[in-house]
Amino acid sequence: MHPLLEKKGFIVDVDGVVGRGDTPIPEGVMAVNRLRKLGKRIVFVSNNSTRSRRILFERLRRFGLEIKEEEIIVTTHATAVYIRDENKKARVYTTGEEGLKDELRLAGLEIVDYDEADYLVVGLNRYITYSDIKKALRLCLRNDVRYIATNPDRLYPAEDGPIPGTGMIVGALYWMTGREPDVIIGKPSRVIMEQALKTLGLEGEEVAVIGDQLDVDVPAGKEIKADTALVLTGVTTEKNLNELKKRHGFEPDYVLRTLNSIFGD
Amino acid sequence: MHPLLEKKGFIVDVDGVVGRGDTPIPEGVMAVNRLRKLGKRIVFVSNNSTRSRRILFERLRRFGLEIKEEEIIVTTHATAVYIRDENKKARVYTTGEEGLKDELRLAGLEIVDYDEADYLVVGLNRYITYSDIKKALRLCLRNDVRYIATNPDRLYPAEDGPIPGTGMIVGALYWMTGREPDVIIGKPSRVIMEQALKTLGLEGEEVAVIGDQLDVDVPAGKEIKADTALVLTGVTTEKNLNELKKRHGFEPDYVLRTLNSIFGD
Repeated sequence: MHPLLEKKGFIVDVDGVVGRGDTPIPEGVMAVNRLRKLGKRIVFVSNNSTRSRRILFERLRRFGLEIKEEEIIVTTHATAVYIRDENKKARVYTTGEEGLKDELRLAGLEIVDYDEADYLVVGLNRYITYSDIKKALRLCLRNDVRYIATNPDRLYPAEDGPIPGTGMIVGALYWMTGREPDVIIGKPSRVIMEQALKTLGLEGEEVAVIGDQLDVDVPAGKEIKADTALVLTGVTTEKNLNELKKRHGFEPDYVLRTLNSIFGD
Repeated sequence: MHPLLEKKGFIVDVDGVVGRGDTPIPEGVMAVNRLRKLGKRIVFVSNNSTRSRRILFERLRRFGLEIKEEEIIVTTHATAVYIRDENKKARVYTTGEEGLKDELRLAGLEIVDYDEADYLVVGLNRYITYSDIKKALRLCLRNDVRYIATNPDRLYPAEDGPIPGTGMIVGALYWMTGREPDVIIGKPSRVIMEQALKTLGLEGEEVAVIGDQLDVDVPAGKEIKADTALVLTGVTTEKNLNELKKRHGFEPDYVLRTLNSIFGD
């Protein structure tokens, strides 16, 4: 029996583990459903900052995953929850897309234009304009404005090549002002990982963190002292694994061809 | 007589010295015309990366300046000249606006989409899209692509507050890829300052560099061993001068209330 099967809970990445965009990864979906049948607690954690939790939930259901919406933690929702817990009356300006705005509103927060804001929330926006960046810049220059980034992702692999992540905006602001976010919510930040543990009702030692990105999912797991497993169904492959280990200077506790390899398949 | 009047040539910044946007600064315009009557050689140097030299020339003529188009060096034109001198057959992808594209074409360079380019030229674009940044990102990741930035300006003071400069894009790319431009053309880079000296036909010691930005114009002057004078008609004021000197750890050779103060007015 695979040692990971002794864990009580699993924190599972979405992209590259159970799906790629709108396409399911059958081995990943099957493995999650098998883990659930064994009574394991499961939570999905995604750094996606453009989709609401509801939208991601519907996608995972279409993949054939038997889950509840509450078992999904995505940075849009996690950011809104974090800010609401910190300041229920926060007045938020965000660079983000509708998915992020929806979650901020659902959390009871007010979305305002930049000159009325006391929170700057930076999330990816594939329709971003110069004016959006100008507004974020002006807030970034104000010490009385709290600056939260949904996630630190620099770039993503798309089908035809890399595309910019939220780091595009974080980097532009850093270069212009010297300021980095006060808080980053997404992996490998412990903020989102602690939300995941809270949802599971478990301690870090009792869970395994499963993901496809060595530099994101492995440090995220280490933040909460969980065991980590890297699957080779996403950006990490048998081919680049050794080079990635060498480049980053750390490695996962386990490497799995697919998540289903946990069952010896 | 002001010691700067012993210089044979003057390298004069545009914004904050002879004009603010479309509005002339009368003392600056008058002083330049007086210098010219004394037989001084004059060249204007601007970090503007959205306007062609022709457009800037027409603006300066409207200000009442008696100049020729060849006496203007602006990063749109200077970038095109630099690339042409380096590689006449360069195939350029640029993030920039029409003003920059016009200059690249005028220099005989071919403007292509990113997947056909061997030069990436980053200049400010107030209509930039996610797709533009994606294309720049992909070129930035390629070692066989030469990466030129028109200028390093992080932000500009606009009437209602700061607005992003070219540094917005340079910073986004740096954050995503770790790569900085191979060459930066605009001040304080010596690239544009050497083009200015060449136009004047003078050595650095024979000229004065006049500008309104301590952190840009003073190091630009020092790059070519010219004397530097800071005017207080732009971003630097009597009020913030000492704080700026302290912050940057250097100062200009002279401070002038307006450029016309060179004549004791």
